[in-house]
Amino acid sequence: MSKNKDCLHQGETQIRVRYGETDQMGYCYYGNYAQYFEVGRVEAMRELGMSYKDIENKGFMLPVSTFSVNYKAPALYDDLLTITTRITDLKGVRLCFEYEIKNEENRLLATAETVLVFVDKNTMRPVLPPDDFVTILYSNKPELNAE
Amino acid sequence: MSKNKDCLHQGETQIRVRYGETDQMGYCYYGNYAQYFEVGRVEAMRELGMSYKDIENKGFMLPVSTFSVNYKAPALYDDLLTITTRITDLKGVRLCFEYEIKNEENRLLATAETVLVFVDKNTMRPVLPPDDFVTILYSNKPELNAE
Amino acid sequence: MSKNKDCLHQGETQIRVRYGETDQMGYCYYGNYAQYFEVGRVEAMRELGMSYKDIENKGFMLPVSTFSVNYKAPALYDDLLTITTRITDLKGVRLCFEYEIKNEENRLLATAETVLVFVDKNTMRPVLPPDDFVTILYSNKPELNAE
Amino acid sequence: MSKNKDCLHQGETQIRVRYGETDQMGYCYYGNYAQYFEVGRVEAMRELGMSYKDIENKGFMLPVSTFSVNYKAPALYDDLLTITTRITDLKGVRLCFEYEIKNEENRLLATAETVLVFVDKNTMRPVLPPDDFVTILYSNKPELNAE
Repeated sequence: MSKNKDCLHQGETQIRVRYGETDQMGYCYYGNYAQYFEVGRVEAMRELGMSYKDIENKGFMLPVSTFSVNYKAPALYDDLLTITTRITDLKGVRLCFEYEIKNEENRLLATAETVLVFVDKNTMRPVLPPDDFVTILYSNKPELNAE
Repeated sequence: MSKNKDCLHQGETQIRVRYGETDQMGYCYYGNYAQYFEVGRVEAMRELGMSYKDIENKGFMLPVSTFSVNYKAPALYDDLLTITTRITDLKGVRLCFEYEIKNEENRLLATAETVLVFVDKNTMRPVLPPDDFVTILYSNKPELNAE
Repeated sequence: MSKNKDCLHQGETQIRVRYGETDQMGYCYYGNYAQYFEVGRVEAMRELGMSYKDIENKGFMLPVSTFSVNYKAPALYDDLLTITTRITDLKGVRLCFEYEIKNEENRLLATAETVLVFVDKNTMRPVLPPDDFVTILYSNKPELNAE
Repeated sequence: MSKNKDCLHQGETQIRVRYGETDQMGYCYYGNYAQYFEVGRVEAMRELGMSYKDIENKGFMLPVSTFSVNYKAPALYDDLLTITTRITDLKGVRLCFEYEIKNEENRLLATAETVLVFVDKNTMRPVLPPDDFVTILYSNKPELNAE
């Protein structure tokens, strides 16, 4: 589990570009990156100790509120991509992520940011995250707590 | 609303191939046709008088049980496709559909069949369809009922 | 064809949310909006008089360079969405778009921006857009030219 | 590398169901399995010694000609699926695959078959596979050659 001064948690995961994810330009279609970032944050949270599925089972949902991506170079068919995901902040009901995608030559292909919002499944209203998630998130980052 | 000797209901709808649905061959990716057939049956049911959404709101789900498709010629980017959908049979809990996709030159690109199963949302078990759906389905086909 | 003080061209198109585009939250998955915005700009360009396909046939590609989206309320299954697309600027090799998605109750669900880059298909390098595209784009906007 | 009396090659690969692949039933959408089978055959061919990408680089394409799938039980969000892919036959220009998908409880979720056709990228016509692919395919199966 990675620790980093600038974020609460950092994880890495790999994804191979599927044929069905390419378009007729021969690029990975720009819309498919959203799923890659989803995989990035899901694996980062699993590694942290509380999976996205766990959070849903506790009665929460985490819809995406804002999403921005900067495409620097195309991902191509069969490329094995490395997605670096950082949980950068928890601000009330909002959980903030940053992402980088690199290919096997270590070339930076894309950077992105998303903000997700904790929502109560019953009321469908924004709600503070479960306590144990907060505990895990900050216990993972003792240097920050010490400051 | 179309009537046809060989089926309970027949409908037509049009879909334009999106850029994100092409692959690097320059073809519409074979996996995207499943969504096209979904649109075909959803619009056929809406035209029949009971939408797929109505059926879900009555407490039913309609997962796909079997799906087969025969790709005859590629659909290409920006092609305006015509999907002909036939509801061919209702056998107990199973609802059977057949499909044809043609392009603007009236060339047959694909044929397919699906079987969907009525499932009770609470028990998650196969269940007979709602009575009013059956009534609509057969009242739409007086010639068949008369035979 | 719509004219507007604040943009070079504005178009509207409609999309119905497919079942396969929902996720288990019951929302249209956040990643599927990229295809909706693609349809928005493709139809806006077709209406302008030069389709995206025409531009590819002239030897250009238009990959997306940056994409940001603000999700305000969920799009739901079977919602008939109206996508308003504005071509806001042509800056050298870059073509800028803004989007709004509303549902049938006229509720604003999402806003977004993309920047696309004209690329030469042979050299794979950024290149100025074809002259006739520029002509069409500005002839569509006499008020701006007059300023 | 697996050998099996009933097929030319057998491979296994794993895929985790993404959130964006679920639908509002809470199931993996039926249309997304096509990508899973694609990953299954791509990894089976890579393991065999000639990747799908290699084949495209030699001037061939492999569009899908027929596809049928039998859905037995739903794949759910975050399920880690095991896809078993068998190359069952090479008949002239046609390459035949069979698939099974099981979840972590070893429950069989789906079976499927596809037929792919070797196509020459230049002529866009069906063509016999490259010799070295045939050699690899059969050298992988000495028992069959010996019969």
